[in-house]
Amino acid sequence: MSPPTIAPVFDDVLAAAARIAPHAHATPVHRSRTLDGIAGCTLHFKGDHLQRGGAFKFRGACNAVWSLDPGQAARGVVTHSSGNHGAALALAARTRGIACHVVVPENASPAKMAAIAAYGGVLHRCEPTQAAREAACQALQDETGAELVHPYADPRVMAGQGTAALELVAAAGPLDALVVPISGGGLSAGSAIALSGVSPATRLYLAEPASGADTAASFARGERVTGLVPDTICDGLRATMGQPNFELLQAAGARVLTVEDADTLAAMRLLWQRLKQLVEPSSAIAFAAVLHNREAFAGKRVGVILSGGNVAPEVLRMAGEGA
Amino acid sequence: MSPPTIAPVFDDVLAAAARIAPHAHATPVHRSRTLDGIAGCTLHFKGDHLQRGGAFKFRGACNAVWSLDPGQAARGVVTHSSGNHGAALALAARTRGIACHVVVPENASPAKMAAIAAYGGVLHRCEPTQAAREAACQALQDETGAELVHPYADPRVMAGQGTAALELVAAAGPLDALVVPISGGGLSAGSAIALSGVSPATRLYLAEPASGADTAASFARGERVTGLVPDTICDGLRATMGQPNFELLQAAGARVLTVEDADTLAAMRLLWQRLKQLVEPSSAIAFAAVLHNREAFAGKRVGVILSGGNVAPEVLRMAGEGA
Repeated sequence: MSPPTIAPVFDDVLAAAARIAPHAHATPVHRSRTLDGIAGCTLHFKGDHLQRGGAFKFRGACNAVWSLDPGQAARGVVTHSSGNHGAALALAARTRGIACHVVVPENASPAKMAAIAAYGGVLHRCEPTQAAREAACQALQDETGAELVHPYADPRVMAGQGTAALELVAAAGPLDALVVPISGGGLSAGSAIALSGVSPATRLYLAEPASGADTAASFARGERVTGLVPDTICDGLRATMGQPNFELLQAAGARVLTVEDADTLAAMRLLWQRLKQLVEPSSAIAFAAVLHNREAFAGKRVGVILSGGNVAPEVLRMAGEGA
Repeated sequence: MSPPTIAPVFDDVLAAAARIAPHAHATPVHRSRTLDGIAGCTLHFKGDHLQRGGAFKFRGACNAVWSLDPGQAARGVVTHSSGNHGAALALAARTRGIACHVVVPENASPAKMAAIAAYGGVLHRCEPTQAAREAACQALQDETGAELVHPYADPRVMAGQGTAALELVAAAGPLDALVVPISGGGLSAGSAIALSGVSPATRLYLAEPASGADTAASFARGERVTGLVPDTICDGLRATMGQPNFELLQAAGARVLTVEDADTLAAMRLLWQRLKQLVEPSSAIAFAAVLHNREAFAGKRVGVILSGGNVAPEVLRMAGEGA
């Protein structure tokens, strides 16, 4: 059940863009003179919180689903994810009219399971351990012949996620820097590949919660560090970076910026007060990274991917209380 | 100090659109399949919460400021407003490099005064009575020669506000219905005039807080009712409809829909959960009016103007708590 390991290249991102175009939104780029003034640089926010399903995840899932040959497609897709990828894959499968199986741990949030089911995904519960997840996934593959679509290490997923940066550069022009949140590394790796083709001088920054910063540790040590458990308000950033993602990001010269949760919440507030856009903390972290590393971005043209907008009500209350 | 009383016509809206184009944003139109399903109609949300200054008010203020001949302009503008119009007029005056005086009552909110000052407006405090406001305004006119720009009864303001509906129909095509919030009636009157030129079959609906519904009372009685004091979370909708606005809206066959605050808050939540857009209650009320009058809109093409996004943190907390 290991995902294909051939690293995607720029042409794969171009192919993904064409493949997902009939199904995905070309999301808007948001600008704000006020935020430019506050940050001391020129900001271009890619609004992927307005993507279908409320997150960039639909791009990669859609590319994977529409990459399947008809015979594969007829047997459906399967993944294990308690988060946005499961819902995105279910929605993508629905655009092609094929089955989607999602293995979720017993302790997954009811809201997230409801989203998967609402998009027509078939839920399969399992014990909340990695071994149980993988076993359940393998059993489903054996039984149904469904194709595994890994949330971030699958090259079709990486190529699909890269279309967000591709669209951003197309709309905003070449950038000095691009800042994206990192978790498993699908969006980061896809962005690196896209930039290599359309804006190779752009420096890629990866924003990571300071608590449990496995990516920063991995870059510092030069090998992938696992086993750190992030305790963070960024509930979309709790995965550990994948091995192919790490290799690709190292080769691309990406840099990691760690961010405290309080700074992420403050950035989230600024985005709703000034852009009127609601993004989740896992997205606001990228803007927070810009605000707290002013010298790195001063006077530059900076892209920021707003990766998702699925804000839990209790997080919104927290943001409101600090305002 | 009474405002000019010649009612604006469609050509005035067209002229306003050309006049404000170099300064105002052409705001986006938001769509959502999910919200269409919930509402039972096809919704086109005009995102004027993304207008400069965070509200449609900039349109009318900008049209008024850029309508002045150079001699008038050199003497500046003046208004009395404790709300968004004062800030919008200050911002508009700044686009032309002229002075803006704003008379505010002693009890105005510090946040709103700060916004006016941040845009370069000169604040003049007065006693919190209508007589004191008007006297202070008149004294400033006498002293400076500044031109009064009334928040909603000024025909230049009405024509400017009408450009939002003009853009909406240009983007979405003819509509069966348009729903806007009503307070003083500048946006409503401007919308009626715009529709008369580009989509004359569109029915105009005015959404008003159920508490202190002077517009509904005025339409029911056939004459303008004043003296009702709204006790509502919609802090932008506490003005009483102007006389020229009333006459124009009666002639246009507009209809009033009253809305409870709890329904407005629920609509505000739906807009952030599904559109990822933060609008103020005074804007969400228009969507709430659609949700609570389903039979009037069933299956129709419905425009909704999201008029502003300046949400107080305590209101956001209230919305989050109900989610």
